[in-house]
Amino acid sequence: MKRATTSTIDEASWLRLDRAPGETLRAALGRTIREAIHEGSLRPGVRLPSSRGLAAELGVSRGVTSDVYAQLSAQGYIVVGDRSAPVVADVEVAGATGRVAAGVQPKPPEIDLSTWAPDTTLFPTRDWLNAVTRTLRGLPSRSLDYGDPRGEAALRVTLSGHLGRTRGVIADPERIVIVQGARQATDILFRILARRGERRIATEDPSQTIPRDQMRVYGIEPIGCPIDDHGVAVPAGLEAAALIVTPAHQFPTGVVMSGERRREVLAWARRRDGYVIEDDYDAEFRYDREPVRAIQGLDPERVAYIGTVAKTFAPAFRIGWLAVPEALADEAASTKRLMDSCSPRVDQLALARMMESGDWDRHIRRARAVYRARRDRVTEALARHLPGLEVSGVTAGLHVTLRFPPGVDDQAVAASARALGVEVLPLSNFAVEPAATGGLLIGYGHTHVSAIDRAVRRVARAVAANTG
Amino acid sequence: MKRATTSTIDEASWLRLDRAPGETLRAALGRTIREAIHEGSLRPGVRLPSSRGLAAELGVSRGVTSDVYAQLSAQGYIVVGDRSAPVVADVEVAGATGRVAAGVQPKPPEIDLSTWAPDTTLFPTRDWLNAVTRTLRGLPSRSLDYGDPRGEAALRVTLSGHLGRTRGVIADPERIVIVQGARQATDILFRILARRGERRIATEDPSQTIPRDQMRVYGIEPIGCPIDDHGVAVPAGLEAAALIVTPAHQFPTGVVMSGERRREVLAWARRRDGYVIEDDYDAEFRYDREPVRAIQGLDPERVAYIGTVAKTFAPAFRIGWLAVPEALADEAASTKRLMDSCSPRVDQLALARMMESGDWDRHIRRARAVYRARRDRVTEALARHLPGLEVSGVTAGLHVTLRFPPGVDDQAVAASARALGVEVLPLSNFAVEPAATGGLLIGYGHTHVSAIDRAVRRVARAVAANTG
Repeated sequence: MKRATTSTIDEASWLRLDRAPGETLRAALGRTIREAIHEGSLRPGVRLPSSRGLAAELGVSRGVTSDVYAQLSAQGYIVVGDRSAPVVADVEVAGATGRVAAGVQPKPPEIDLSTWAPDTTLFPTRDWLNAVTRTLRGLPSRSLDYGDPRGEAALRVTLSGHLGRTRGVIADPERIVIVQGARQATDILFRILARRGERRIATEDPSQTIPRDQMRVYGIEPIGCPIDDHGVAVPAGLEAAALIVTPAHQFPTGVVMSGERRREVLAWARRRDGYVIEDDYDAEFRYDREPVRAIQGLDPERVAYIGTVAKTFAPAFRIGWLAVPEALADEAASTKRLMDSCSPRVDQLALARMMESGDWDRHIRRARAVYRARRDRVTEALARHLPGLEVSGVTAGLHVTLRFPPGVDDQAVAASARALGVEVLPLSNFAVEPAATGGLLIGYGHTHVSAIDRAVRRVARAVAANTG
Repeated sequence: MKRATTSTIDEASWLRLDRAPGETLRAALGRTIREAIHEGSLRPGVRLPSSRGLAAELGVSRGVTSDVYAQLSAQGYIVVGDRSAPVVADVEVAGATGRVAAGVQPKPPEIDLSTWAPDTTLFPTRDWLNAVTRTLRGLPSRSLDYGDPRGEAALRVTLSGHLGRTRGVIADPERIVIVQGARQATDILFRILARRGERRIATEDPSQTIPRDQMRVYGIEPIGCPIDDHGVAVPAGLEAAALIVTPAHQFPTGVVMSGERRREVLAWARRRDGYVIEDDYDAEFRYDREPVRAIQGLDPERVAYIGTVAKTFAPAFRIGWLAVPEALADEAASTKRLMDSCSPRVDQLALARMMESGDWDRHIRRARAVYRARRDRVTEALARHLPGLEVSGVTAGLHVTLRFPPGVDDQAVAASARALGVEVLPLSNFAVEPAATGGLLIGYGHTHVSAIDRAVRRVARAVAANTG
């Protein structure tokens, strides 16, 4: 290992391949370098080893490393000169197109532990391109016209089977509406309930803020229901048209809803003649035991079930699904029709094809292995650097939640972490009612395994700076 | 010309190629046969000539005809046996996937003169696939994450230039929001205006019904403003937050808004401190003279401009754009964000690429030539079979409007036409207030040029059955 200039990287410190099962060496190497560029451990201007040097370092053939460099260069991640070693490109600048890009996207933090999105470098570009190509080549021209507001029959049939097998969801294709992500699913449901004169909808506390903002558009008041270690507790005498829950991996605490709580939630819905809205937002990533099945399967006439490809595939495609009780099916379709006619059709057909081919399941297994490795690294790092604090939500999803004792201001800790180059979300961002205790969401969707220990060390410094 | 069996077609009567400029013979032949299958002049089970017979008939090489047959067979339009001549497939059955398809789509009429959609057989599959492939291959992984609610910067920059050149629209990329078609654009605007406490929005009478249904969701009352030969007339003392107009080709009458009316509409908006909502829904297809430019360019701070790819490209992609006045820009973006986060990103990038490459303009020119030929055939046929009736809207768009004298019930005429196998929409479907006179929309988006005369003849029979 030599350092030719101060801006040349130390190979040993950055290049840890977490090669997923079935992933080729080329793919893993390319992904690792892209990730390192995204999460900031390889900064613009840094000089990489030559393809020969990297090959020697890794003990692989030079063909592998030069192929990967050529691909990264084509993608704009690195700049390869005629004679000189490759240099990390300024990706923000490379991605800008004309007048608008500057100022649109905030500058990314050095290390991003915010939790919203999965690792898009895992996206199976080749499989997807293959599915899109086959779909377009064989497409009857009528499939380019306006479609069924509920979405493509092929995808709804495929999903009906897939959700039944993987999540225990009981939903005829007739009950499924393809939507533009979970956000449109809740927008549809709130609109329907508002039109029925409903003015209150309950939500877990803490929980995502977007649904609450969406409710208010329709004059609906959000009611918080507290989360404890067993999931949401339905308050006595709760009066609301629906209760939104995330049973598989509560957002943001990561708690798995207990069987008893599931029964209580459904009993409340039957008593009230209300609905449970189940956001199954990252149920596909469960690491240590069999996935907890969706609550929808326990009472399909009381539960509206929401799922998306945002975590499993990529948020950019905006594909989600809403499986509704019979009593809401017609209105869900007509509401979707009034909002935007139908979701884009070709991507739906390509997704159905990818699911039917097995490429989908293979992709999920591969991504799950990558995330499991990161999850393990996160829990190890937290145990090492923050041994005194409680951690929840480790069994599933793309984040764990660090809990603070009373008196620690999680906003202040997050601000300290940000000053240290680590973006991390405070738990109190998601509170409905101000909570006695705070915490941090440690998301690993965007964070390469090699950066995790360093990131958690900085979080520990931020915690130390704000306690006793 | 021989008829081998009663189900063998008479080649001379169906095969009229309206080959567009730049279209290959193979492409034109394939499209013509697909169109004939869609519009019903080639029905399921009909036996086609052999590839050798068709080649002889057309005076082309057999390679052309057998290639086209092979492609049609791969697409499910025809069934090619080992020795026998090809047979038209049952396309509805071929498109069905499992349990849901039956009953979802209504059986298509024999000839479809309804006006909503363009001819999807003109879709440039190869160009689009090329654009998607290049986009995905070079895609930085961050483009697979959640995006700017306003849409991709690359597409907004491209559109800003394109709309300026082709439509006279003055809109910075910062003012453009990419939406899921025109329907979502109006939904966004109505939501913003409702939140400002507005309770009335004016619309042309007659006009599309969907925006009126959308308004009512937000408690907004639609106010009709009558259309005459110069476009919409603003009633004295009109009190409304906005006026929705279709100046380039009024829907449904086809009237082009006069310069004086444009000035009146804008003067009203300034006086009221209201907005003009311009739906430029099929302005790209103008046949006889230079396109009338968008009213938005006359006063960008008073006009919210809406365009889509539904007519030019295909409705299935659900891509549209909304260019808003400065005063609405932030709220339009935040409303889009709350509805569905952002529109699907890869298709936006592919569209920008296609527009930049020139493939887009080439496609529009080609489609325009096909539609112009149909428009000519429609006006000829109406002059021949219904010489006494007024026709409006012939200069642009994908339909013309046939006007009835007082006393003719257009619903009854449409029902008679339907009984004769022709689907055609009565003008009164679009009335805000009941009108003294009715008419029919004669749409040619879905109708092959060879079927037009036959269709209009049947419409004339339907008119005759309901007059004097």
